[in-house]
Amino acid sequence: MSRYWSELTASLVPYVPGEQPKDQKYIKLNTNENPYPPSPKAIEAIRSAAGADLRLYPDPSCDALRETIAAYFELTSEHIFVGNGSDEILAFAFPAFFSASRPILFPDITYTFYPVYAQLYGLAFETVPTDEQFRIQARDYNVPNGGIVLPNPNAPTARYLLIDEIQEILETNKDQVVIVDEAYIDFGGESAVRFVKEYPNLLVVQTLSKSRSLAGLRVGMAMGHPDLIEGLNRVKNSFNSYTLDRLAMAGAIAAIEDRAYFEETTRKVTATRDRTVEAIKPLGFETIESKANFIFIKHLHRSAKELFAALRDKGILVRYFNKPRIDQYLRVSIGTDEEMDTFIEALREIIDGD
Amino acid sequence: MSRYWSELTASLVPYVPGEQPKDQKYIKLNTNENPYPPSPKAIEAIRSAAGADLRLYPDPSCDALRETIAAYFELTSEHIFVGNGSDEILAFAFPAFFSASRPILFPDITYTFYPVYAQLYGLAFETVPTDEQFRIQARDYNVPNGGIVLPNPNAPTARYLLIDEIQEILETNKDQVVIVDEAYIDFGGESAVRFVKEYPNLLVVQTLSKSRSLAGLRVGMAMGHPDLIEGLNRVKNSFNSYTLDRLAMAGAIAAIEDRAYFEETTRKVTATRDRTVEAIKPLGFETIESKANFIFIKHLHRSAKELFAALRDKGILVRYFNKPRIDQYLRVSIGTDEEMDTFIEALREIIDGD
Repeated sequence: MSRYWSELTASLVPYVPGEQPKDQKYIKLNTNENPYPPSPKAIEAIRSAAGADLRLYPDPSCDALRETIAAYFELTSEHIFVGNGSDEILAFAFPAFFSASRPILFPDITYTFYPVYAQLYGLAFETVPTDEQFRIQARDYNVPNGGIVLPNPNAPTARYLLIDEIQEILETNKDQVVIVDEAYIDFGGESAVRFVKEYPNLLVVQTLSKSRSLAGLRVGMAMGHPDLIEGLNRVKNSFNSYTLDRLAMAGAIAAIEDRAYFEETTRKVTATRDRTVEAIKPLGFETIESKANFIFIKHLHRSAKELFAALRDKGILVRYFNKPRIDQYLRVSIGTDEEMDTFIEALREIIDGD
Repeated sequence: MSRYWSELTASLVPYVPGEQPKDQKYIKLNTNENPYPPSPKAIEAIRSAAGADLRLYPDPSCDALRETIAAYFELTSEHIFVGNGSDEILAFAFPAFFSASRPILFPDITYTFYPVYAQLYGLAFETVPTDEQFRIQARDYNVPNGGIVLPNPNAPTARYLLIDEIQEILETNKDQVVIVDEAYIDFGGESAVRFVKEYPNLLVVQTLSKSRSLAGLRVGMAMGHPDLIEGLNRVKNSFNSYTLDRLAMAGAIAAIEDRAYFEETTRKVTATRDRTVEAIKPLGFETIESKANFIFIKHLHRSAKELFAALRDKGILVRYFNKPRIDQYLRVSIGTDEEMDTFIEALREIIDGD
């Protein structure tokens, strides 16, 4: 606390990301990174862009990247917004579309950055309880509200909502913006991008951090009606003209264009995920069915906090949330096959008390 | 206008950056970029960082970069904040330190992003007139206020305020935060960073976009008392955990460490600037004395708007502001010697009516 802080600053409870250890001794299964490197074509594009032109500002409207994304989704570049990670896009979307007078709705168990954005901008929000299996129920969102934010698949539960349910929510909320946060959609889910032309109130947000293995580059994208994209641009251009650097744009374009590599690596991650789930069931774990690059697991008899600490002692970082409803679960990112074998073996030793 | 926009979005008047033409046919003297490429060591560091580790999130607290900056300024890393360009740092600083109840003060003629930030966050502000020569007068800031933002040198005037005057403003405003925006300080001015340990209300903001030739990389830095840095972090961590990507951090560290290259290129730019001023005087131009990498010039008889258009026709982009008090001036970034010779020759042709 400082006398120089604004009242707002003093009141903030910032988001806390998963730990990023600076040594290399851990198997990192705690921040949902992709275990495979980015597309070699993305690396090559970045190296090519690293030259004299870095003295020049980047294109503030990111046209080339937006056109690449538009082609990928069969939209036009007027349907596309890009940002410094999907978090920045969400940070623009909250003030762009929501207000202090009518509450934003999002699930009670979800990405914990949502209430932080609301707090930063003084926006009202209400959480909607998921059911006992952490399922989002479309009918629960058919209530008066000022906008909806729905992650699909949800984090940290990994729970996937069928596209028909998303459509039901869009149908019953035509007067306000519905944001579908699809950070993890490429690991087995079906994207709501197909509804962008049909529902002018839909904004779909994705990221290159997970399925394109580019968490270190900071690129997110949003797809929506051109009016929504213009709204995002108004806020962005009141905040920072140049949010994406030249290297990020070059790498993102190459990564999106390399579909073969993207499909191969996401297929490997989902195969490893499904194998891991089968392998830990006999150890007494229950798993929420996952369509993401992580799993949300609970042991029948052992506390999550204890398992988290025991794994850490064995050099494996996972994510534990000391919060109501989910404090008996661990969120485990899917690593390589070798890393997951080490993880499974570590769990076996911990459970069997070796 | 869209029915899905918030009231705030509808009310915003976003900042408009200088044009970034996508073709190569212009000599670009319009956005204050450095005509020399970044340090070869920065390019090399970026290429080395472009690899498999891009799959991992960057360090959210940017420790290595902050330590490099701290060493450069002989401070500690607790005195340092970094952001996605100095614009992002200012966008965090406004809500971190200012409020709706007491007005922020800044000069009437200055960087036009300041009122945009205030508007985005609903903050009060008042402009303080500069004198007829666009000089900032320290005594004008000895009035009740909720914080001060002072660019030094100022933009677009290039007018430099002596360090003693900055200190006078700090002395008479100890109860609120004074931000000194030093985007252009390395081209001949003396930085207020020397006051950071003495004045806990001082935040100095700098950028790598100009003197380090890295506008395309998006890195800014702020130096201040650890309480101010913590305030910035509270806002930043309520907005986006990872604002700097791995490549930007690697390039920035190498650029700051390469002092010899930095000194050589800034010396070249200032020499070219001073030579250009002398060369255009005989053509009938008045120039505000510049300590920046641009000059602010006015012709005794020809309108700035007309000169702007005539230069553009000759393939030279400069900046013209259609605004009260400065609509007879052009802001001209300093290019290479060759570019400035072309610029001077073009002016000669225009003025002489060739």
